[in-house]
Amino acid sequence: MSDRYTKESQVSEDIPGQALQLRSLVTASETVTLSLEDVAVPTPAPPQVVVRVEAAPINPSDLGLLFAGADMTRATADGTADRPVVTAPLGPGAMRAAAARVGESLPVGNEGAGTVVAAGSSDAATALLGKRVAVAAGAMYAQYRCVDVSACLELPDGVRAADGAASFVNPMTALGMVDTMRTEGHTALAHTAAASSLGQMLNRLCIEEQIPLVNIVRSAVQAELLRAAGATYVCDSTSDTFMDDLTAALTATAATIAFDAIGGGPMASQILTCMEAAIGASAAFRLYGSSVHKQVYIYGGLDGDPTQLTRGFGQAWGVGGWLLIPFLQKAGPEKVARLRTRVAAGLTTIFASQYTDEVTLADALRLDAIAVYGRQATGKKYLITPNG
Amino acid sequence: MSDRYTKESQVSEDIPGQALQLRSLVTASETVTLSLEDVAVPTPAPPQVVVRVEAAPINPSDLGLLFAGADMTRATADGTADRPVVTAPLGPGAMRAAAARVGESLPVGNEGAGTVVAAGSSDAATALLGKRVAVAAGAMYAQYRCVDVSACLELPDGVRAADGAASFVNPMTALGMVDTMRTEGHTALAHTAAASSLGQMLNRLCIEEQIPLVNIVRSAVQAELLRAAGATYVCDSTSDTFMDDLTAALTATAATIAFDAIGGGPMASQILTCMEAAIGASAAFRLYGSSVHKQVYIYGGLDGDPTQLTRGFGQAWGVGGWLLIPFLQKAGPEKVARLRTRVAAGLTTIFASQYTDEVTLADALRLDAIAVYGRQATGKKYLITPNG
Repeated sequence: MSDRYTKESQVSEDIPGQALQLRSLVTASETVTLSLEDVAVPTPAPPQVVVRVEAAPINPSDLGLLFAGADMTRATADGTADRPVVTAPLGPGAMRAAAARVGESLPVGNEGAGTVVAAGSSDAATALLGKRVAVAAGAMYAQYRCVDVSACLELPDGVRAADGAASFVNPMTALGMVDTMRTEGHTALAHTAAASSLGQMLNRLCIEEQIPLVNIVRSAVQAELLRAAGATYVCDSTSDTFMDDLTAALTATAATIAFDAIGGGPMASQILTCMEAAIGASAAFRLYGSSVHKQVYIYGGLDGDPTQLTRGFGQAWGVGGWLLIPFLQKAGPEKVARLRTRVAAGLTTIFASQYTDEVTLADALRLDAIAVYGRQATGKKYLITPNG
Repeated sequence: MSDRYTKESQVSEDIPGQALQLRSLVTASETVTLSLEDVAVPTPAPPQVVVRVEAAPINPSDLGLLFAGADMTRATADGTADRPVVTAPLGPGAMRAAAARVGESLPVGNEGAGTVVAAGSSDAATALLGKRVAVAAGAMYAQYRCVDVSACLELPDGVRAADGAASFVNPMTALGMVDTMRTEGHTALAHTAAASSLGQMLNRLCIEEQIPLVNIVRSAVQAELLRAAGATYVCDSTSDTFMDDLTAALTATAATIAFDAIGGGPMASQILTCMEAAIGASAAFRLYGSSVHKQVYIYGGLDGDPTQLTRGFGQAWGVGGWLLIPFLQKAGPEKVARLRTRVAAGLTTIFASQYTDEVTLADALRLDAIAVYGRQATGKKYLITPNG
């Protein structure tokens, strides 16, 4: 037991004074450097706990902070196997976007799960000692993480850290999409990159809630995967009949809102065009197009090219950014707590994630691993086990 | 006095049984045909009046219905000087968009002004007999137009038909933009094609209301025109320093909403990029960009190319269509009545329009006239005088 801890805080096991944390640093010489640093494990304040991180997923939403927009195909490795150092060059656009973080070594990892090994003196903190919790507080690519109790979700008995590691970003995003759909007056939705971890979750959620969902994928294999998971409407954007298929699915579902992970290229515009055609199929001629509002929210950037809108879909349309954190702020603490409870109950069913590989912090910085998870390809999801 | 009128309706002068109306017809052979047709002048029902149309502007918002997206540079003329017939070919995209109107000869002209020459038996109709009114009811490129009293705005004494002809589309759009800005929580706005008739109106309106306005124009001459009209912030998109100028103006005004008449190309994206830079200039580093919502509404299509969004402006953004009629429907009758009264009081000041030329219905279909007003160039606005 470390004597750094006051008698008011309690610990359940030996905790090192320092532990590893993954860092991302953009330098003035237009590179990003990824490395592992020794950082002090803090003594928890009364409302805090120290979590030994046992599992943290590499989500697409982590890659922006991790890579800083660098060209990772040109990354080089240095250091040792235990302490790798990866360096990659940033283009001018990425450098402009990263201007505010130059010289600041940043921790990474939106979410993860582990065991509470030290607790502050508050009742809420003490009650979690020895419990397994999911945490969404950033800096989770680390062996230990000291956080407020409010950032912890206690995992149900029998749920492993690996099962709870991705309990925030994807599940809350799927629930947020459904909530946004309802709040904005739609009754069905469309989703791109629909075979992703998030997409599969959304498919299961919509099946349970009986919400018509149009799944847009980019290969026949992905289409098959979703159909096998019970999806009714699946459209393959690489098919020659994509626009007709999508119009038919949008007509059948009456979906007038879509969530798009791709961002670049014609996808958002194609969805709006097919929505307008689907509406028009059952409406009289209107000079400026239908008066039904059609919305696409872009929440990812799998394609970094510009979004191209042809605007051949009337005037009642919107395209905008959608991000989880602003949604949660708008939703308010009560709704968020309700959604979190729902996630906890479904961690091994609706909200389950599958991983291709489990890696240590050091192995997560191997160039061959980066080459795989950096591509954000469907079915290539990594889990970091910082104490594994 | 025509005996077609029952003793319940009153007329103030001789009205022909038939009169000219301009028509636009898309044919199955992929052309649009513009012509003048003889149509019956109806007997007004109790709540209606017949207006002798004395002035009707050719607004950009009329050209979609008039030309149906045809390539007017390939238009050919036929018929006589009094009864011209203009024909132009439609490309595949225009033909798809016009599918619902093939074979249907459509009247044109959103708004105009004239004198009430016959009135139905209702008190409201009778009260307008002999009065000069502005009308926004479509089909105004005609010698006579029978409309409901509710579509009429009585013009103040001394206001000519030419002054009242454009009292609806542009003035209500300018007021609608300011209202939308306020409703959505912004305190300043930006506007493209800012030297247009509408743009000049918006400039005068914002000066009177002390609303900071960023005027975006496409030439030094247009910039000078707006500065001479009292504009404080004018940015020329053809200048090498445009992005810096725009960022500076958006910083000074804190404008986070823009109305864009151009639509195609990078303009909407440039505005969002500069808004984000303007916000960032006074904000700390945030991982996903600022949390301030930035909005661009596209209300015109001066550039028919796709809208290109580079998305380098965080996640709190939206681009959407904005159209006057849905705005008015949402605003409700009371607010609309209030705005209309305001327009009537400012027809020769804030809401005044200037015209390059006045033409008859027949002259509006001359190829040389179409070549001028069809280009939608700033300072080339035509007024049709159907009885002139």
